Parts: sequence; C-alpha cells; structure tokens
Amino acid sequence: MTAELISVGTELLLGNIVNTNAAFLARECAGLGLSVYYQTTVGDNPQRLEAAVRQALSRSDVVILSGGLGPTQDDLTKEITASVFGSALKEDAHTRERIQAYFDARGTKEIAENNWKQAVVPEGALVLDNENGTAPGLILEKDGKTAVLLPGPPGELIPMFRKAVYPYLHRKQPEIIVSEMVKLCGIGESRAEQMITDLIEKQSNPTIATYAKTGEVHLRVTARAADREAAELLIKPVLKELGARFGEFIYTMEEKVTLEEAVASLLKEQGLTVTTVESCTGGLLAGRLVNVAGVSEVFKQGFVTYSNKAKRKLVGVKKATLREVGAVSERTAREMARGAVLATGADAAVSVTGIAGPDGGTEEKPVGLVYIGVAVRGQTWVQECHFTGNRARIREASVAAALTLLRKGILETAEN
Amino acid sequence: MTAELISVGTELLLGNIVNTNAAFLARECAGLGLSVYYQTTVGDNPQRLEAAVRQALSRSDVVILSGGLGPTQDDLTKEITASVFGSALKEDAHTRERIQAYFDARGTKEIAENNWKQAVVPEGALVLDNENGTAPGLILEKDGKTAVLLPGPPGELIPMFRKAVYPYLHRKQPEIIVSEMVKLCGIGESRAEQMITDLIEKQSNPTIATYAKTGEVHLRVTARAADREAAELLIKPVLKELGARFGEFIYTMEEKVTLEEAVASLLKEQGLTVTTVESCTGGLLAGRLVNVAGVSEVFKQGFVTYSNKAKRKLVGVKKATLREVGAVSERTAREMARGAVLATGADAAVSVTGIAGPDGGTEEKPVGLVYIGVAVRGQTWVQECHFTGNRARIREASVAAALTLLRKGILETAEN
Repeated sequence: MTAELISVGTELLLGNIVNTNAAFLARECAGLGLSVYYQTTVGDNPQRLEAAVRQALSRSDVVILSGGLGPTQDDLTKEITASVFGSALKEDAHTRERIQAYFDARGTKEIAENNWKQAVVPEGALVLDNENGTAPGLILEKDGKTAVLLPGPPGELIPMFRKAVYPYLHRKQPEIIVSEMVKLCGIGESRAEQMITDLIEKQSNPTIATYAKTGEVHLRVTARAADREAAELLIKPVLKELGARFGEFIYTMEEKVTLEEAVASLLKEQGLTVTTVESCTGGLLAGRLVNVAGVSEVFKQGFVTYSNKAKRKLVGVKKATLREVGAVSERTAREMARGAVLATGADAAVSVTGIAGPDGGTEEKPVGLVYIGVAVRGQTWVQECHFTGNRARIREASVAAALTLLRKGILETAEN
Repeated sequence: MTAELISVGTELLLGNIVNTNAAFLARECAGLGLSVYYQTTVGDNPQRLEAAVRQALSRSDVVILSGGLGPTQDDLTKEITASVFGSALKEDAHTRERIQAYFDARGTKEIAENNWKQAVVPEGALVLDNENGTAPGLILEKDGKTAVLLPGPPGELIPMFRKAVYPYLHRKQPEIIVSEMVKLCGIGESRAEQMITDLIEKQSNPTIATYAKTGEVHLRVTARAADREAAELLIKPVLKELGARFGEFIYTMEEKVTLEEAVASLLKEQGLTVTTVESCTGGLLAGRLVNVAGVSEVFKQGFVTYSNKAKRKLVGVKKATLREVGAVSERTAREMARGAVLATGADAAVSVTGIAGPDGGTEEKPVGLVYIGVAVRGQTWVQECHFTGNRARIREASVAAALTLLRKGILETAEN
C-alpha cells in the first residue's frame, strides 16, 4: 500500500517553520509498511490545495494531510477534501460538546464564534477527538482511497496519530512491520555503528538502523512478517546480539522509555534520592527529570546556581576554589555535587558547570567546555566535556551527559 | 516570479531526517520576493523524479532541486534534469581539478572512481563550485525556466546558496519582500485575530498572518515592493495600528526576540534581579531564562521545590498553608514567590505550582490546574490557570504563563 503526505500551510511555504510533521508521519508510515513516494507542501489556496489532493489521491492509496483545520478563514483543508470526496459538511454535536468542554476546562467565558467552524465535519467521516486542542482529526474513505486529516500543531498531531490513526492504518495493511528500539548513552554514533557494521550489512530482515540523538544513539531493529509473533521471532536473536555487544551502554530496550525515565527507574530500584545543581544548563536538567511522571519519589528539589555567589551560598562551593580555578572547573563541579548532597540530604547529586556561549569563552576555557559532577553514596565522579554548536545545543548535550554520568555513578555503586 | 522546491532523497521519504533545507530555501526565496507555492519531496526514482521536475517546470519559473548530486548510482538529479532540459552531459575540467584538490587537501591517496561522476555536468549549465564538498551546484536555463541544482547536505547547500544562487536569483527578480513580526503574549489566537479581522480582510499589501505558539501569538506583516525602503513605508502604518490595538500585549516587534529575552531586557532596564521557584515545571522556567545569553546580570539563582518539604525549607512556605490549602493553591504560589524574594534578596520572584499529570489530579484540583505567583518590589500577583494537553504541554504552557505574569508585574510597578 502507498501513502502520500500533504502539508498545508503558508508558514511552511515561507520557511518560517521546519516541517517536522512530515518527518514524523513518514517515519510512522515506514513503520506501518506503507511506501511513501511523495511529500507535498502547499499553502491555504483553494485551487492549488484541491489540485494537490486530487493528484495525491490519483497515485496513492492513503493521503495524509496536516494543517489547515483551525478556526480561521484561511483554514480550508477540511472544506476542500470534503468537496473532492463529494461529502457535504454538517455540524457534529459530539465535537461541539468537546470544544465547549475544552474552553470550559480553561475557564474561557467568551468563546470566539469562529471556533464553531471546527465542529463542522464531512458527512460519513470518522471523527478523531483532539485531546490537545479544538480541531478534530478526520478520516474519509471512498473508492478504496483514504484521506486522513490532522491538525498542524505537532502537540496535537502526534498524539492523535498515535492514538487513532496508527491503529486505523495498521488494520488496513496485510504485512506488518514490527520494530524494537535499543537505546544507548555514553557512546558516539560512529563508534556504535562500527561495532555492528557486519550486522548492518548482512541483515535485510530484520534491518538495523542507527539514529543519533543529543548524547544518545538509538538502534532500530525492524522486521517484516505476516504477524507480530513471526516478526518478534526474527527480532529476538538480533536484540540478544546487540545486548552482548553494547552491554551497559544500553539504557533501555523499550521504545517509549527516555533516558531520564531510565535513570529515575534506576534510582527507584536502588532506593536513592537525587538532587541537581546547575549553572549553564540553568534548570534544564531538573526540568528533564521532572518530565518523568511520578519522579517525586526520587527527586525532591534542585538548585539553579547561576552566579558564583549562589554556588557558594546554596551548595557551599569554597570561595578559594572559585578564586583559584574558577567556576568552570573540575573542582567546582565536584564541590557543587558534594555540597548539594550535604545541603539536601539526598543520596545522590549531579552538577553542571560550563560555558554555553556565545560569550564568556577564553583560550584556556573555550565555549563548549562543561564539567559534570556526580556524587553517589559518598563517591564522586567528574567528567570534562567539550561540546560544539550553539548555546542551546551545548546546554542540551550537557543535560544528556549529566544523566549519563549519573547513571554510571549509580551502576558503579549498586549494591548487588 | 514563482519558485518551487524539489527535495530529493530516500531519507526524507522515510522520515529519517527532517527537511531543514526546504525551510532554509523557502525563507530565502521569500526574502528574494519569489512566491513559493509548492514544495515536493521525492526519492531517487527516475520516473517519479522526472515527473516531478516536469510538473514543477510547467507551473513555476524557478525550480530549486536539492539532493541526489552525490557520487553513487542512486544519485540521479543531474542526469534527469539534464535530460528534461535536453542537455548532453560532459566532463568539466575545472570541476575535475577542484575535486582532485579537495581530496589532496584531505590527504586522500586513493580517490574512489565513482567520485568522478561528480565532474560531469550538463552542457551549457552554470557550474557552482562546492567549497564544502565534492558535488558542484548547477544552474540550467531554457525557455524562460530556470533549474537550480544544489547538493543535499546543509553544510554544502547553505553556503553555496548564499554565495552563488542568491545573487543570481536576485538579479532576476525586480520586486522584494520585507516582513516584520509583532509578538504578543497574554492573549489567545482567536481573540487576537478577531481584534484585527478588518485589517486581515482589507489588506493585500502588506498582508497580516497570525501564528499561535505556546502562550503566544505572532503576527507577521509582509509587504512587496521595488525596494526595502518602499516596503518599509508600506509596513510602518500597519505596525502603528497593531501597536495601538494590542498595546501591552505586544512584547516585541523584533523577529528574533523571544519572550524570555523581552522579559530579561525589561528586568535590565528596570535594574531588577529575579529568582524562580518551581514545582511542576521543575526547572524549565529557569532553563528558559538561561536561554538568554548574558542573563546572569538579572538572574543569579533559582529553586526547584518539587516536594512539600523543599517548598518549606528552601523558600519558607508555611506548614499550615500546605496543610490547609495544599501545595497547588493560590496561597502556596504567593508564599513561594514572596519566600524566594526573602531567601535570595532578589527584587522579583516568579513561582509555579500545579498538577502537570498524568496522575495526581482530583475533582477539586484537576490535571492542568496551575498557579503562577509573581512578586515584584513588594507587590504580588497570583494567576490561576487551567491548561489542557499532556504533561509536557501543561508544563510548557505554565512556563509561558509565568513569563507573561512576571512581565505584567514588572510593567505595573515600573517607576516611570
């Protein structure tokens, strides 16, 4: 079966935003075993949009449109697609109620009239509830062709795709694709790939693909088979081999588990609490830990010590240390981590101090120099990192490195 | 003049990479005053690629292709485009020398034979030297149509476009496009749009487009004119009108300024320092402030008080408050903000306490209920918010609301 993507939006045509939806949808289609041969971006222009929809339906089985479902006059995706499918538009009572409830939940008293446009749907369409916004998704079918309409904001599109569209398309597709993810930290992509070149080259089913994320490498093992059981039988020995080769670099073999979740689980297993003390990352590390629902069991508090004074006052970094070796140093990172344990009574602490730029670098301490400190059960580790890229990238890389070193500290002191 | 983009590559069709080239090229075309109505992505398949090139040339003046110029057999963009233009291929001596020099500079002894494929160019084409790789760029012209072929890697494409393609296209294009951005916070998209429906409907040059971001609304005003001065003359009265209608909702009229930067600038102007104390956002608010390079002047330290104990210990929230009204309450938010001022000596503080979910909600205090507290110069404000969406969205929305309320507090107590 073939699928095709149409992204609708002037922001895309003007280049004001990057089309991450297309990459997400393409990846999901690949996972479903749907072949995607075309992706098109058009604006909110009725003639061009209609031509794009007609052309896509003429050459692909499934057409996934994103964007142009909002409340404004510009938003035409639903109207155009309904007209191509020959469906009349009518108000959907359930969607009207849902939109009303959406605004009620936010305490909105006066709902702008144009919002009700979003409760109008093509007759015969399957309506997909939007749990993160107002515009519903829609699925239309006719003469063996399917059109899927999704809202443009990724925060609405992605959950809706996962919840409603994936299972829907999955049922249409006779051969299935099953993939498993092996996630690594503390190793670079080139090295990871070199360690399995033979596997990558030999295998055609399952295939192994590597993806570099900030501070992480993900390996996707994908098998194609008649059913899930057969696919899993193909995947199992590959996972075992990857486990043998990568060992402790693997922080999870579950697709949905993030590095912060893996670290939080490890802390729970070991009955440890952790605190954070951050300079250049300024709260992002704590923020990532708090991504984990239920993290309160292991994470109670953290510090952002951006100034030298805060480093001294909040976590007791010594004045002499700051004077002699400066805030961005191995000693400061170590004192921050130790001091945070003392200040909070947590079992573990992780600290970050570095130069995220664009200013503040010197020849001796260039932009990108970051020290990570970890204290667990009385032991400490410090890692010196040299990151490249802009301020945001250096800070993200620092957070990933901090989680990775914390994980290492927990594993090395594990009591079993 | 119209332009159209064709991105070539299986990685894009599989969603393995995000198409940042399309966004870059679209933005550049917009800046050149070229109207882009279509962007297409196709794979390295000769029939589909040829059909895409022919269709694009039939409806646009300029077609910019990226990708598929490399040394492998898969790379077909040059061959297909040359055949559509009826140009024979022949080796270009200059490019052969440049490729040889490229490998010499890297100390490569044995150059893989397939690299010489890249020295072959269509007859009559303008050859663009690649300063960051081997494959040259190409410009072909015939019957008033232009095809621009660029290598896929952004590190090669972007410099080549800036150096050779931009000036080339600029000479072809008599009109230019200038756009300005007006950024709002504290107002929703529907309401913002309703306040300027008359302007949006009336105007064709400049146009006004609205974009919703988390907690923000952006208005883009775009004018088309013979030169920059004439375009700015068209834009100026519209900016003035938007200024009059939206007043303090506008936090900046500069494209590149973010909400956190606007708040940091305001703090600097007013000579204020700020501290943060976060529960459900767990460091993300501090993290956003630290996005601002040079924020150390106004932001020295912050707290993540995830547990009740941390709220008491670090910023002095009263035990009785937590017992009587709970951590997610107006009183706790106020005490957090006031306590943070006392604990740090900062002039201002902003606090966040709420239920980000997915667990922890009750009928009385549902998931999405968030209180923001702000203390500035002895005055305090608390805002009760009801957000929807998943944990990540609720936390992002909370951060935007916290910055917005902080800005309000600063403006309301401003000493001028």
